Amino acid sequence: MIQLISYPLKNNWAALSARPQYDFEKLEKIVSQILNEVKKSGDAALQKFTLQFDGIHLNELKVSENEIKESGNLISGELRKSIALAKKNIERFHISQKESIRKVETSKGVTCWRKSVPIEKVGLYIPGGSAPLFSTLLMLGIPAKIAGCKEIIVCSPPDKNGNISPAILFCANLLGLKNIYKIGGVQAIAAMAFGTKSIPKVNKIFGPGNQFVTAAKMMIHKEGISIDLPAGPSELCVIADGTCIPSFVASDLLSQAEHGPDSQVILLSWDKLTIANIQAELKKQLLNLPRKNIALQSLKNSKAILFKNRDEAIEFSNKYAPEHLILVVKNADLIAKKISNAGSVFIGNFSPESAGDYASGTNHTLPTNGYAKSYSGVSLDSFNKKITFQKLSKSGLKNIAKAIETMAEAEGLIAHKNAVSIRIK
Amino acid sequence: MIQLISYPLKNNWAALSARPQYDFEKLEKIVSQILNEVKKSGDAALQKFTLQFDGIHLNELKVSENEIKESGNLISGELRKSIALAKKNIERFHISQKESIRKVETSKGVTCWRKSVPIEKVGLYIPGGSAPLFSTLLMLGIPAKIAGCKEIIVCSPPDKNGNISPAILFCANLLGLKNIYKIGGVQAIAAMAFGTKSIPKVNKIFGPGNQFVTAAKMMIHKEGISIDLPAGPSELCVIADGTCIPSFVASDLLSQAEHGPDSQVILLSWDKLTIANIQAELKKQLLNLPRKNIALQSLKNSKAILFKNRDEAIEFSNKYAPEHLILVVKNADLIAKKISNAGSVFIGNFSPESAGDYASGTNHTLPTNGYAKSYSGVSLDSFNKKITFQKLSKSGLKNIAKAIETMAEAEGLIAHKNAVSIRIK
Repeated sequence: MIQLISYPLKNNWAALSARPQYDFEKLEKIVSQILNEVKKSGDAALQKFTLQFDGIHLNELKVSENEIKESGNLISGELRKSIALAKKNIERFHISQKESIRKVETSKGVTCWRKSVPIEKVGLYIPGGSAPLFSTLLMLGIPAKIAGCKEIIVCSPPDKNGNISPAILFCANLLGLKNIYKIGGVQAIAAMAFGTKSIPKVNKIFGPGNQFVTAAKMMIHKEGISIDLPAGPSELCVIADGTCIPSFVASDLLSQAEHGPDSQVILLSWDKLTIANIQAELKKQLLNLPRKNIALQSLKNSKAILFKNRDEAIEFSNKYAPEHLILVVKNADLIAKKISNAGSVFIGNFSPESAGDYASGTNHTLPTNGYAKSYSGVSLDSFNKKITFQKLSKSGLKNIAKAIETMAEAEGLIAHKNAVSIRIK
Repeated sequence: MIQLISYPLKNNWAALSARPQYDFEKLEKIVSQILNEVKKSGDAALQKFTLQFDGIHLNELKVSENEIKESGNLISGELRKSIALAKKNIERFHISQKESIRKVETSKGVTCWRKSVPIEKVGLYIPGGSAPLFSTLLMLGIPAKIAGCKEIIVCSPPDKNGNISPAILFCANLLGLKNIYKIGGVQAIAAMAFGTKSIPKVNKIFGPGNQFVTAAKMMIHKEGISIDLPAGPSELCVIADGTCIPSFVASDLLSQAEHGPDSQVILLSWDKLTIANIQAELKKQLLNLPRKNIALQSLKNSKAILFKNRDEAIEFSNKYAPEHLILVVKNADLIAKKISNAGSVFIGNFSPESAGDYASGTNHTLPTNGYAKSYSGVSLDSFNKKITFQKLSKSGLKNIAKAIETMAEAEGLIAHKNAVSIRIK
C-alpha cells in the first residue's frame, strides 16, 4: 500500500525526511503581481481577483450582520452543540497559557518584569474551497479573543454564489467576531497587509492556505506585517510497535492522507509485522473513503520505514520534525519525553490526530515542513507580544553603575556611559 | 538642536512615525550573490569574502581554544567584574521566564499540556566593526544556555589582524561557548544557514547587523531557517514632563544618537519648557562626545514633538511603537500600564536605557521599525519551541467523539471522522 523502506542507512535519512520543494521564484512572480495591484487599486483589485478566481462579482465584501445572525439556522443543532464543546475545550487549554507578571529584583533596587500585551489588530485567513475549515476559525479566533486583540478581522473566500459557509459564520458569531470579509487567496493577504477602503490593515496575519497564500504571507513579511507560521502541506508521523491497534493507525494515516495530494504520511516501526498489519488495514479502509482519490495520491508519496530498534525510530522522527506525531508504543509516556522536534504529540491508542484537529483543546495550527525544529504552533503567545519593563531606584542604579560604565566604555559608547554617570554623581 | 514639531494634526502622525525605507530589491541582489556563492563553494567563499570585506586572509575560521582562554588576560579586571555582574542579572531575569508544565483536563479523560523544548542548534551573530558588541553575546548566549540549546555557535567578523575582540571571547568563555568563528556580514549568515565544512548549519539565527545582514536573515528565512527579529536601526522615544531632569533626558537621547547616523531619537512632551531645557542640555553635552559626528547626524533626523496633553503623547508613542521607551513623567508607573506598543520600557529618572543595554537584566535585542506592534524582544522563549501533547483515555475520547465526528463530517473530512468512530465502536 505505501512504500516500505527497510533499515535505511543514516546517510539516507536526510533524503527520507525531505519535503516537496516549491519553485519560490515562480510563485513570487505571480504573487507579487496580485500584491502590487491590491496595494495600488485597493477594493477594485479585490473585486477583480474575486471574479477571476472565485467566479463571482461582489459589490459588498463585508458579510452582513444578517448573514451572520442567520448562520446558526443553516447548520444542524448537532453541529452547533459540537462547536460549542470544541470551543469550551480550546478555551480551557489556551486560557491555561496565560502568564502572570513576575517582578524580579535582579540587583537590589533594580526591578525588571515583562507583561503580555495583545497585538492590536490581527487578521485571520480561513480557507474555503472544497472544505470550509470552520475549525480553523475556532483555533485562531479563540486565542485572539482570550489575548484581548482589539480588532480581529476574518477573510475567507466566497463560493460561486457569493456566500461564506454558514458554519464559519456561526463560529464567528459565537466568538463575537463581526468583521468578516468575502475575500480569499493572495488578494485577501494583500488586503490585510496593506489595507483597502473596506478592509483594515492589520499587524499580524494568521491562517493556513495553499502555496500561493503561503508565498504571499512570506512576502508581506518584508513590509512590516508579521505572520503566524510559514505553512506547508500537512504532515503526520506515527511511531508504532506491537502494542498499537493496526486498524486505528491506518485510520489516522488515512485522515492525514485525505487532506490533499501533497499531504505527508510517515509510519515508523521496528516491527515488520506491525507495518504489514497496518498496510493491510489501509487497503481495507481506503475503499469506502469519499476522498479516496486524494488519499491514494498522497499515499503514493508516503513511506513506512522499518528501523533496527526503537531508539533509531525516535531519532529519525526528531530529525524529520513532523507537524503531528502519534505515539502508539509501549511506554508511550516515556517515549514522549524523548521527543525534541514535533508540532503536537498524540499519546496512546485513544489519541487520534482528529482529536487535536477539532475538539481536545490543543491548537491545530502547527509548524510543517521541518519548521517544528524552531517554531511553536499557534498559541495564546501568538496573539501577544511581551513588553519588558524596568524601574531602578537611585541606589539601584548606583549598584550596577560601575558595571554599565565599564562595559559601555569598552564598547566605545561613551554617551551610554554618560547617561549613567550624570545620574549618580 | 533637534527639530521641534508643535501640535501635529493626527493625520500627520503616520508620517511623523515613519522609519527610513531601504531599497530591499537592490539589497537582495547584492545579498543573494553572496548567499549563493557560500551555498555553492562553502569555506572557499567564506575566505574570499573575508579577504574582500574584512581585509584579511584566514586559513582557519575557528577561534582556537588558546585564543579563548587567553582572552581574559587581555581585558581589565574591572571589565571582567562588570561582565560577571551583568551576566548574573541577565541570568536572573531570563531564568524567571521559565515555564512549568501545566496539564489541563479539558474534558474528563482528555489531558492536554505543552512543554518548552530547546531549539537544538542556534547561531549567534555578533557584529564587530567600530564597536565590538560583547554585550550582545551576553544577551543571546545567556538565554541560549538557560534554554539548553545543544549546539550554540557564534560568528563575529575578524579585525584586520584576524582577531576577534578579547571581550567577546571572554564572554564566550564565561558562558562555556566553544564554537566561535571569525566570519562576519552576509557570509556569516549564509554559513550558519547552509552549513559549510567548518561551520555547522543551525535551526535559528540570532543577532543584530547592518541592512545587508538584516536582508540576508530575511532571505534565508525562506530556506527553512528561522530568525530572531527583522532588525533595523536602533530607536529611543522619551516621554517627559516637568518632573524629568533635563540633563538626564539629554544624556539618554545622546546615548541613542551615538549608535549610528540612522538611529532614531524622539522626544514627546506637552510641556514647552521641558523640551527647551532638554534641547539646551543636548547642545552642552554633545560637545565632549567622541562619537559627536555620528550623534549630530542622527539628531538631524530626530524630532521633539509638543502635544496638547499627556494622552495625546501616549497615543502617539503607541502608534510609533518604539524599540526603547523612557517614561520620565508624573505617575510614571500608571502611565506604563497604558503602553501597548514598545520593545522595552524604562520607568523614572533613574532608569536610563544604558541600564537595559548592559546590566539590569532585561534583553537588549528588541523589535525596531514598528515591529513592536507584533513582535516581542528576544527572551528565553526565543530559544525554545513549545510542543503540545495530548493523551486521551478511551472514555475521554468517547466524551468528545460525537463533537469530532460531527465537525469532521461538516468539513467533508470523513477519514478524520473514521479515526474516531473506529476507536469507540
